[in-house]
Amino acid sequence: MQPVVDVSPPKWHLAHTTWFFENFIAAPNIEGYQRFHPQYNFLFNSYYQHVGERWQRPQRGNLSRPTTQEIMEYRAYVDQHVARFLEDESRVSQDLAQVIVLGLHHEQQHQELLVTDLKYILGHNPLFPEYRPAKPQSGPAAVASENYLRMEEGLYEIGFQGEGFHFDNEKGHHRVFLEPYQILDRLVTNREYMEFIEDGGYGQFAHWLSEGWDWVQREERDAPLYWHQVDGVWHQYTLSGFRPVEPDAPVTHISYYEADAFAAWKDKRLPTEQEWEAAARKYSPEIPASANLCPAEYYHTRVRQGQDYQFFGDGWEWTQSAYLPYPGFQKAPGALGEYNGKFMVNQMVLRGGSCATPESHIRPTYRNFFHPHLSWQFTAIRLAENL
Amino acid sequence: MQPVVDVSPPKWHLAHTTWFFENFIAAPNIEGYQRFHPQYNFLFNSYYQHVGERWQRPQRGNLSRPTTQEIMEYRAYVDQHVARFLEDESRVSQDLAQVIVLGLHHEQQHQELLVTDLKYILGHNPLFPEYRPAKPQSGPAAVASENYLRMEEGLYEIGFQGEGFHFDNEKGHHRVFLEPYQILDRLVTNREYMEFIEDGGYGQFAHWLSEGWDWVQREERDAPLYWHQVDGVWHQYTLSGFRPVEPDAPVTHISYYEADAFAAWKDKRLPTEQEWEAAARKYSPEIPASANLCPAEYYHTRVRQGQDYQFFGDGWEWTQSAYLPYPGFQKAPGALGEYNGKFMVNQMVLRGGSCATPESHIRPTYRNFFHPHLSWQFTAIRLAENL
Amino acid sequence: MQPVVDVSPPKWHLAHTTWFFENFIAAPNIEGYQRFHPQYNFLFNSYYQHVGERWQRPQRGNLSRPTTQEIMEYRAYVDQHVARFLEDESRVSQDLAQVIVLGLHHEQQHQELLVTDLKYILGHNPLFPEYRPAKPQSGPAAVASENYLRMEEGLYEIGFQGEGFHFDNEKGHHRVFLEPYQILDRLVTNREYMEFIEDGGYGQFAHWLSEGWDWVQREERDAPLYWHQVDGVWHQYTLSGFRPVEPDAPVTHISYYEADAFAAWKDKRLPTEQEWEAAARKYSPEIPASANLCPAEYYHTRVRQGQDYQFFGDGWEWTQSAYLPYPGFQKAPGALGEYNGKFMVNQMVLRGGSCATPESHIRPTYRNFFHPHLSWQFTAIRLAENL
Amino acid sequence: MQPVVDVSPPKWHLAHTTWFFENFIAAPNIEGYQRFHPQYNFLFNSYYQHVGERWQRPQRGNLSRPTTQEIMEYRAYVDQHVARFLEDESRVSQDLAQVIVLGLHHEQQHQELLVTDLKYILGHNPLFPEYRPAKPQSGPAAVASENYLRMEEGLYEIGFQGEGFHFDNEKGHHRVFLEPYQILDRLVTNREYMEFIEDGGYGQFAHWLSEGWDWVQREERDAPLYWHQVDGVWHQYTLSGFRPVEPDAPVTHISYYEADAFAAWKDKRLPTEQEWEAAARKYSPEIPASANLCPAEYYHTRVRQGQDYQFFGDGWEWTQSAYLPYPGFQKAPGALGEYNGKFMVNQMVLRGGSCATPESHIRPTYRNFFHPHLSWQFTAIRLAENL
Repeated sequence: MQPVVDVSPPKWHLAHTTWFFENFIAAPNIEGYQRFHPQYNFLFNSYYQHVGERWQRPQRGNLSRPTTQEIMEYRAYVDQHVARFLEDESRVSQDLAQVIVLGLHHEQQHQELLVTDLKYILGHNPLFPEYRPAKPQSGPAAVASENYLRMEEGLYEIGFQGEGFHFDNEKGHHRVFLEPYQILDRLVTNREYMEFIEDGGYGQFAHWLSEGWDWVQREERDAPLYWHQVDGVWHQYTLSGFRPVEPDAPVTHISYYEADAFAAWKDKRLPTEQEWEAAARKYSPEIPASANLCPAEYYHTRVRQGQDYQFFGDGWEWTQSAYLPYPGFQKAPGALGEYNGKFMVNQMVLRGGSCATPESHIRPTYRNFFHPHLSWQFTAIRLAENL
Repeated sequence: MQPVVDVSPPKWHLAHTTWFFENFIAAPNIEGYQRFHPQYNFLFNSYYQHVGERWQRPQRGNLSRPTTQEIMEYRAYVDQHVARFLEDESRVSQDLAQVIVLGLHHEQQHQELLVTDLKYILGHNPLFPEYRPAKPQSGPAAVASENYLRMEEGLYEIGFQGEGFHFDNEKGHHRVFLEPYQILDRLVTNREYMEFIEDGGYGQFAHWLSEGWDWVQREERDAPLYWHQVDGVWHQYTLSGFRPVEPDAPVTHISYYEADAFAAWKDKRLPTEQEWEAAARKYSPEIPASANLCPAEYYHTRVRQGQDYQFFGDGWEWTQSAYLPYPGFQKAPGALGEYNGKFMVNQMVLRGGSCATPESHIRPTYRNFFHPHLSWQFTAIRLAENL
Repeated sequence: MQPVVDVSPPKWHLAHTTWFFENFIAAPNIEGYQRFHPQYNFLFNSYYQHVGERWQRPQRGNLSRPTTQEIMEYRAYVDQHVARFLEDESRVSQDLAQVIVLGLHHEQQHQELLVTDLKYILGHNPLFPEYRPAKPQSGPAAVASENYLRMEEGLYEIGFQGEGFHFDNEKGHHRVFLEPYQILDRLVTNREYMEFIEDGGYGQFAHWLSEGWDWVQREERDAPLYWHQVDGVWHQYTLSGFRPVEPDAPVTHISYYEADAFAAWKDKRLPTEQEWEAAARKYSPEIPASANLCPAEYYHTRVRQGQDYQFFGDGWEWTQSAYLPYPGFQKAPGALGEYNGKFMVNQMVLRGGSCATPESHIRPTYRNFFHPHLSWQFTAIRLAENL
Repeated sequence: MQPVVDVSPPKWHLAHTTWFFENFIAAPNIEGYQRFHPQYNFLFNSYYQHVGERWQRPQRGNLSRPTTQEIMEYRAYVDQHVARFLEDESRVSQDLAQVIVLGLHHEQQHQELLVTDLKYILGHNPLFPEYRPAKPQSGPAAVASENYLRMEEGLYEIGFQGEGFHFDNEKGHHRVFLEPYQILDRLVTNREYMEFIEDGGYGQFAHWLSEGWDWVQREERDAPLYWHQVDGVWHQYTLSGFRPVEPDAPVTHISYYEADAFAAWKDKRLPTEQEWEAAARKYSPEIPASANLCPAEYYHTRVRQGQDYQFFGDGWEWTQSAYLPYPGFQKAPGALGEYNGKFMVNQMVLRGGSCATPESHIRPTYRNFFHPHLSWQFTAIRLAENL
C-alpha cells in the first residue's frame, strides 16, 4: 500500500530495482533479450522521463497485479540473465560496468527506503504490528554530555575525489572557506527533545520558520512522527513495536522544520553541509567497520559519542544547506543524467546515514536530500554554532 | 487497495460484514462472548456513528494488517459463535431475528460491492487482469426494437407492503397519482450509446445538466467508465478481461449525468422511480427465477426484451427521482436507524438490479441510490416520455 | 469583491443584468446597434453556454475594471437604446415581449442576490458595517404558538396555470395525490432554534443527514450563518448592523442540513414542495399587497402568524423536495432554454420568498432552489408531519 | 482585489505600512496616543505573530471596508502624529531612530509591491487597462553581444559592512572562497528567450528541474507571465498596456524554474549570490545616480550593457542560491526579529533590483528572495559558468 505519496508499496521497490537492471543493462546489452513483460517498463519506471511514459507515482499503491509472487519471478528472471551475461567479462565495457555499479547502489538506496516505508506503513496501522523482535540492549545507559568540537577558520576541500563509487552530486570537488565554528560531537537525544516539548516548543512561533509554523498548525504536530503519549508517557512506534521512548537514544523522525526550531530554542543552529563534512573528515577519519553500527537492530538504544564514531550511522542529520549543485557539477547524458540533478531545488541536504543505510553509503561526501517537511526517514539533529 | 474513496479493499468487505454480526448479534446477545480482537470494532465499523469512533473511510486501503488470512479466521470465529447460538431458537427474539436477517441482507449488499469493487480495481490496472473466464454466449444476437409500454394516468401504490424482508426506505406504503406516460420495454444498448458518442454527445453542453457538463470537462470523459478506443474500435474492461464492446448488450457503468444527457439527446427523459415501479408491477408481475438472470457471467451479452424479463436484473436503472423519504418513512431507533435515512440528500434512486445483485434483492420496491457522478456499479438507462 | 464563489461583486450584478438586455434584446433587434464595449459579452455572461466563452465565475471578484462608474454608463447606454426602441410598439413581437419580461424578472432575481451578497460581504467584514439603519419596530412582541394546519388526502393541482409571468420550471401543470398531513402556520423562530442549539443539536449526529454532519464538522458550525456569541448572548449581523438575536423573529440563514436536523430534533419533518403549495393555496388564497411585508427593513422583528399572511415573504422555506422537472417540463430552445432546466440536480426547492424578494416573485408556484449547504439567502424553516 | 494570494490589494499596502508606524512607533512612544481604530491592528498586521492575532492573508481582498478614503485618513492621522512627535529630536533614542528608518525601508518595499501587484491585477484583466502612458523611447535599438566578465579564484568578502541602512539578512559579513568563473555583463534578452521558446524549450523535460517540469505541466506554461501570442507575434502586458514584446529588452517575469531551464538549454548556469556580489563589486563599483535607471517608465526598452550599469536596476536576477542565513546571522529580539529570518527556507535569492525598486534599495548586498514558482516581480536572468 501507499498511505502517503512518498511511501511506496514494498513490492514496488522490488520491481523497480529489477526494472533498472532490465532496462539499462539487460535490454540494451544482452543479445536477443526478451523483456519479462511488455508493460513492466511502463509500470516500474520511477521518474526517468527519458525512458517514456510512466505509471504515475501516486497510483503505485493501486496495483494488485502483478502480485508479489510475480515480481519475485521477474527478479529471478532478470538476475539470471544478467548473471549469465556477466560471466564473460569481455562483454562488459568500462561504461557498462559503471551502470552496473550504479544499479547496485540504486538498489541499496531502495533497500533503505524499503525499511523506512515498511516502518511508515506498519507504524500508521492502529494495530502497530511488530516488524521484527528487538535485540537485547548491550551495555549501560549513558547520559550524553554536551561536548563541542572546535573547527578553525580556513580553506577546506569538499566533495568526492579519488577512486571508488560516488554519485554525480558529490563530484565537482572544490574548496570552501569556513569561518570558525564548533559542532556537537553527538546527535541530540530524545531526552533533550522532550525538554523542548515540555517547554512548549511546539506552541511558540518564535522558534519556528514561518513555513514550519504553518506546517505545525496544519498537521497539528506536537511531537516527532511515531510518537504518542500514553498515560503521560511518550511512546514511539519502532520496527520492534510500540514502546516507551528511550531517553538516551538520538531523536529521529524529525522534519527540517523541527530540527531548525529545536536549534533555535537551544540558541544554536544546524551546521552547513560543508561544516559537517569538514568536521567529519577531521574527527572521524576512519569510518567504523560496521556490523555494530546499529547495535539494536532498527531502533537506537543510545546516542553514541566519542572520537571514533560520532559522525556516521546514527541518523541522517539535517544540515542548514539547501540541495544545490556544486560548482563543477555536470549532469550525465541521457536518462541516468536525471539521477540527481533535477531534484536540486526546495530540498535540504542531510549527512551521515542511519541504521537503515547500507554500509557502502556511509561516507563523508554522501549527500542525501529531502523536502523540509518530511520525517519518515531516520532523520536527526546535530547542533553547531559560530566561534 | 482503495483506488478511489468509494471503492473498498476486498478484505475490508469481508471484515466489515463479519463485524456487523459480531457487533449487533454476538456481542450483545451471546453470554460471555469475547470479541475476536479489541481493535476490530474501531477498524471495521463503516459509518455507524452510534457505535463509536471509526477508522476513517479514505484510509481503508492503508491497512496491511490484519491480513486476509486473519480476517478469514475472524469470519470463522464469529460464524461459529453465531451458528452455535442459533441452535437454540428460544434464544432468538422477534427483534433479534430481524437484526439477523438484516445482517444477511447487509452481507448481500456487500457481496455486490465486492464484485463491483474488484472490477474497479482490476479494470484500472493497466494489465487488465481477467477475474474469471467468460461463458460461451448462448443464442443469436438480436437488434433491439424500440417498443414503449403505455401507462394510463391514475393512482398507483408505491412502496413495500405485506410480509417479507425489506429495508426501512421501502416502507411508508403510499399512493401517487401519475400523469400518462410510456416507458421503454428494455434498456438502452451499447449500439445506441455509441451513436450518442459519434454524434458528439460528450461535446455539446446543450444535452447536459450544468454539473454534468462540469463533470465531463473536469474528468475529461468521452465514453462510459471502462471504455477505451483501440484502433478506432471501442473496447471495454469486463470481469472476463478487455474485449470489444458488444453492441446489443445494455450500456452499463453510466453516471446519472450521462444517462440524463443521453435521454435529452434522444428527446426523451428518464422515468421517475414511481413511474418505474408502477410499470414494473404491471408488465413484470413475476420476477424470473433466476439462475439464468445473468447468462454471460458478469458481463452482459445482449439486452433482454419482451414481456417477462424486462425490468429486473440487467442493470441498475437511473431514475429521475432524488433519494428522499417516503411520506411515512420512520427511522429505526439506535444504530440501525442509520441504515438508510441519513443518506437521503444529493443522491438519485436506481431501480431494477444487475447481474452482480443477489437474487433476493431483486424486487419492485427496492430503492438503490448513488451520487449522480458515480458509475462503478452496473448502472444503466431506460427511457420514458409523457403521453 | 467575491469572498466565496456564490457571492458576486455588487457591480457584477449591475453589469450582468444590463448585458441580458444588450445581448438578448438590443443587439439582435435594434438596427445598427453598437455594443457598448466589445469585451463585455465575454465578461458579463453568467452561464449561458450558448452565447460563447465566458469569464469564469470564480474570477468575478478580480475585475477592478470596468469601474462601477463605467458600468453605470453601460446601464444608461443600454437603457436609453432599449427605451427608445420600445417607443414604437409595432417593433415588439409577442416573442420579443416575452424576452423583455423575462429580462425584467431576471433583473429582479439579481436585485435579491444583490441584497444577500451585500449582506454576506459586509457580514464577513470584522468591522460589521451597517448597510442601512433599522426602522423602529412596530407593535408588541408575541410568543409564537404551535398551530398546525390540517390537509386532507386527495388530488391537488401543482404548477402554474393561466396568464401572467412565470418561469419555465413552474410549467407542466399537473396533479399529485397527497396523503393527509399537517403543516405549521408560521416559520420556526430564533427562540426555538436556540433551544436546539442549547440542547446540543450541533453535536449529536443522530439528528443529521450524513453529509450534513460532515458539513458541520468540516465547517465547524455551531449556529446559523451570521450568528456569534458575545458574553453568552447570541448576536447576529443584520443589514442594520450587529445586534442581539430577536427571539420571536423567524430563524433565517439556515442550510438545508440545519433545517432537516432541526426538524428531526423536533420529531417533525420538512414539507414537500407539493404539500407546501397545496397548503399555501388553501390557507393564503390572497397574497398580501405588500409594503408591509417586511416591516423592519431587511431584518425580521417577529414571526408572522395567522390566516392571511403565513406563507409568503418571511423567508425562503426549505422543502423536502429535490429540484427536478415537473412531468411536462420543456426547455425553451436556444440560450434562454438554459435558464432553469440545467440546474435540476443536487439542489433542493425553496418556497415562499423573503423580505429581499421582489413582490412580483411572491406566488404559490415559484420554485427557488439552492444546494443544501448554502445559507446566505434568507432561508427559513417550516415544519410538517403526517396525519 | 487579491487575484492570487501573493498579490495584495493596493489599499492594503497603504494601510499596512501606516500600521507599521502606528504600531511600532506611535503607540509605544507617543504619550496619550489614541489608535485611529481599535480593529486596524487586527486587520493590517501582515505576519508579525508577536503582535497578536491577524486577519488572514488570503482574506485581504475581501475587505470592502475600510474604504480607500478611510485608509487615506488613517495615513494622514498617523503621519501627523509621528511628524509632530519627531519635531523634538530629544524624544528619539538611537533604538527608536532605527525602527523609524526600518519603517521607511519597509514602506519602500511595499511601494515596489504596490507596482508589481497593480501590474498583476491589471494584467490579468481581459481589458488590459493601461496604468500610465509609455515614455518615448530614447536612442537606437542595440543587439546585445555575448560578453562574459572573468573572475579569478580567491577569497571574497560578502555581506554588509560599515555604516548605512541594511537589513538583518545582509549582516554577518564573512569571507567565501570562489572557484574561477565568468558572468555575463548583461541580462538575457527577450530575443534570446524567444529562441528558447521556438526551440521547444517548454516541451523538453531535459532542461527542467523536476518540480519545474511539474509546474510547467500543471500551470500549462509556454511563455513568461504576461506573454500572449496574437497572430503569431508575442505580445506582453506592460504598465503602459498590451504591446509587442521588445526583442532587445531584458526578459522579465521569469520564475526560477524558467531561469534555470533557460540556463540549462544554453549550457550555462545561474550565478550563486556570492558570485553575483563579488562580480558586481568589481565591475560596477559605482551605483548609477539613477533618474535614468528606468528610461522607459515601468517597462524596459533594451538591455543595458557595458561597464558602469550592468548589475543594478534592470531586473531582480535569480541566483542559484537558496535563501539561508549568513554564518553570523542574528535575529533581532521581539517582533522585528521576524522581519527576515523566518522566511529562510524554500526560497531563492535574487540580486540587483528592477525599475520598480526604490533607489535606496539598490546595493550590492541586498538580498531579495522569492519562492521558485513566482514571477510577478520584475525577475530576470543572468548567466554564468565555471572557468
